[in-house]
Amino acid sequence: MQSFQPPRRILMGPGPSDVSPRVLAALARPTIGHLDPQFQALMEEIKAALQRLFNAPDHACVPLPAPGTAGMEAAMMNLLEPGDRCVVAVNGAFGGRMADMAGRAGATVVTVDHEWGQPVDPARVEAALAEAPTKVLAFVHAETSTGARSDAASLCALARKHGALSVVDCVTSLGGIVVDAAAWDADVIYSGTQKCLSAPPGLSPIALSKQAQAAIAGRKEKVRNWLLDFNLLMSYWGGEGGRTYHHTAPINALYGLHESLVVLFEEGVQAAIVRHARMHEALAAGVEAAGLKLLVDEKHRLPQLNTVLVPEGVDEAAVRTHVLEAWDLELGAGLGPLKGKVWRIGLMGASATPWHVRLCLTALCEALAAQGVTVDAKAVIAAADAKLR
Amino acid sequence: MQSFQPPRRILMGPGPSDVSPRVLAALARPTIGHLDPQFQALMEEIKAALQRLFNAPDHACVPLPAPGTAGMEAAMMNLLEPGDRCVVAVNGAFGGRMADMAGRAGATVVTVDHEWGQPVDPARVEAALAEAPTKVLAFVHAETSTGARSDAASLCALARKHGALSVVDCVTSLGGIVVDAAAWDADVIYSGTQKCLSAPPGLSPIALSKQAQAAIAGRKEKVRNWLLDFNLLMSYWGGEGGRTYHHTAPINALYGLHESLVVLFEEGVQAAIVRHARMHEALAAGVEAAGLKLLVDEKHRLPQLNTVLVPEGVDEAAVRTHVLEAWDLELGAGLGPLKGKVWRIGLMGASATPWHVRLCLTALCEALAAQGVTVDAKAVIAAADAKLR
Repeated sequence: MQSFQPPRRILMGPGPSDVSPRVLAALARPTIGHLDPQFQALMEEIKAALQRLFNAPDHACVPLPAPGTAGMEAAMMNLLEPGDRCVVAVNGAFGGRMADMAGRAGATVVTVDHEWGQPVDPARVEAALAEAPTKVLAFVHAETSTGARSDAASLCALARKHGALSVVDCVTSLGGIVVDAAAWDADVIYSGTQKCLSAPPGLSPIALSKQAQAAIAGRKEKVRNWLLDFNLLMSYWGGEGGRTYHHTAPINALYGLHESLVVLFEEGVQAAIVRHARMHEALAAGVEAAGLKLLVDEKHRLPQLNTVLVPEGVDEAAVRTHVLEAWDLELGAGLGPLKGKVWRIGLMGASATPWHVRLCLTALCEALAAQGVTVDAKAVIAAADAKLR
Repeated sequence: MQSFQPPRRILMGPGPSDVSPRVLAALARPTIGHLDPQFQALMEEIKAALQRLFNAPDHACVPLPAPGTAGMEAAMMNLLEPGDRCVVAVNGAFGGRMADMAGRAGATVVTVDHEWGQPVDPARVEAALAEAPTKVLAFVHAETSTGARSDAASLCALARKHGALSVVDCVTSLGGIVVDAAAWDADVIYSGTQKCLSAPPGLSPIALSKQAQAAIAGRKEKVRNWLLDFNLLMSYWGGEGGRTYHHTAPINALYGLHESLVVLFEEGVQAAIVRHARMHEALAAGVEAAGLKLLVDEKHRLPQLNTVLVPEGVDEAAVRTHVLEAWDLELGAGLGPLKGKVWRIGLMGASATPWHVRLCLTALCEALAAQGVTVDAKAVIAAADAKLR
């Protein structure tokens, strides 16, 4: 058994995205104790930074000590008790996962199913909410499995109107498109670190409104989860009145998240969002110049997750293998009903640069040519470059 | 908001322990994708290394993507269904936590309570097992809150005799004292990375026997946890037949765990265990020469977690503050009924060296002197040195 030296990889799949040298360096700083006064100060800075990033000044924000899925699980397990009704909008893999978790929490689950690639339809969600009193409405803001963006503001407003708490999955959206907990009046909103924040996977930032906190404090039964029980977590992460030992925080991973937030605020959140939009426009122009099509309608596309349809007769996996072997470039495959039918191209965080767009298009053209598809690579790059000027 | 630079700290509390520069460097290697063929090879190496470290050649071993508590939660949530009977031996904070989790899984929980600082009494556990059919017997091998070691072999044998599955918490023991899943015939055994493995906190290695796997596969209800559901996890971590996407593995944390295992195997697991024992003897000799007493009887003491009784009239917290401020040295405080009554001194992994023993004794003598306790620091160091020769 020998030390592991990872190969060079350019990460343009659905996450993780490229992690910047600054964040990698932060990970390697010496570990200190999780009850150290200086670590407590770091925790307070991270909490404040997450409030700023989610635009959630009145929410309680913490980074959960596990991957993005932990945010989803924490939301469902803490808000739902046996017998509660939960409406889940499903328009991809992650909506389906939310419904599964709601069932494990003991809830009566009603799904509003959509074709993959479509945004969530507020009218159909409202019809489901109107049928019976509902505790939670859950949906995915940015469906990583399809690249579709849903209208979080409208859906959160519907939840409030019908007396339900909203749960918003922002794993792929945070840092790449506008996420605004206060404007949306969202109750529970969570993300991951390995998408547009460009930190390694392993943490799940989450924000809880006062209504969500009250619902959790007023539960009849214990949460069906100890590690993610907010009644316990908040006394560990709560600043005032000292901290109660709960778990041991993943110290070095939190160094990485902290540095990724420093990097993001140095650029400016709004500037980062504009950058994601520009890189998407360039990639989409190149993809279309190559004769390829995107799955999602233009007005619902996520800039950070581009779902490209595999042309007739092209071997989807062979293209990914080609770009990995020839260019050290990772692209994503399709999930579920989209398996073998799409590539998922991420432009997230540190992977959303002109260099990445140009490299990806170059590699993709080469791989398509190897499959006998005629592509004018020069025209493809020129189409992208026209958007990058 | 600025980049965080941690202060120098010498970690001799209950964990995290000092992380070696080699492990820190591994954390900072470039992130690759969690579905990358090279990452898959790394996963296979980690699984095999954990089998070797737990001595669990017939167990399924994986590192769970969350702190040590996740191992406990996974064990309880996967094995227990509503109505199952669970006997939990409680002789400290972590046994109490196991009982709490078993309740959340829906089990009927029977605790066998012990005074803190005592090992688990097999006779009393057997009496509890004999009362009614029991699904799970859970106990802590190395109680981090007290420094007591329990007899895992006897307790696992009792579980088997009475038809129960055993759950063994080895968070603090793995790598510091003998842990032997095969010899004990243990069913579920888990640990953390931030104790004797000297990697940062954030992962929980776990091993499941064939009996445990069969019990989980034969459940009537879904596990009350999605992230830690072994039916899903095993198809993500299972090598043959390809991998099914579940969560996104914490890539860089796994680099760190991998490197910590390389470092441990280079030294040799048995050599590391001998080193922990020697450092403990030296520390205990010094502590006793200083006129201090250890909480736990000599034959049940954990070498890696030394619980020192605070002498009458000494301000427990002031001593910890002194050694932190004057020596950058972190010692642990007491939990629960031991709060204010003990210091917990860790000698774990990279923190189990003669240098650490001598620094700790020097700092402790100085802090006691500052409180008006007369200590012959030279004699204290000499007593430790006599054991280090």
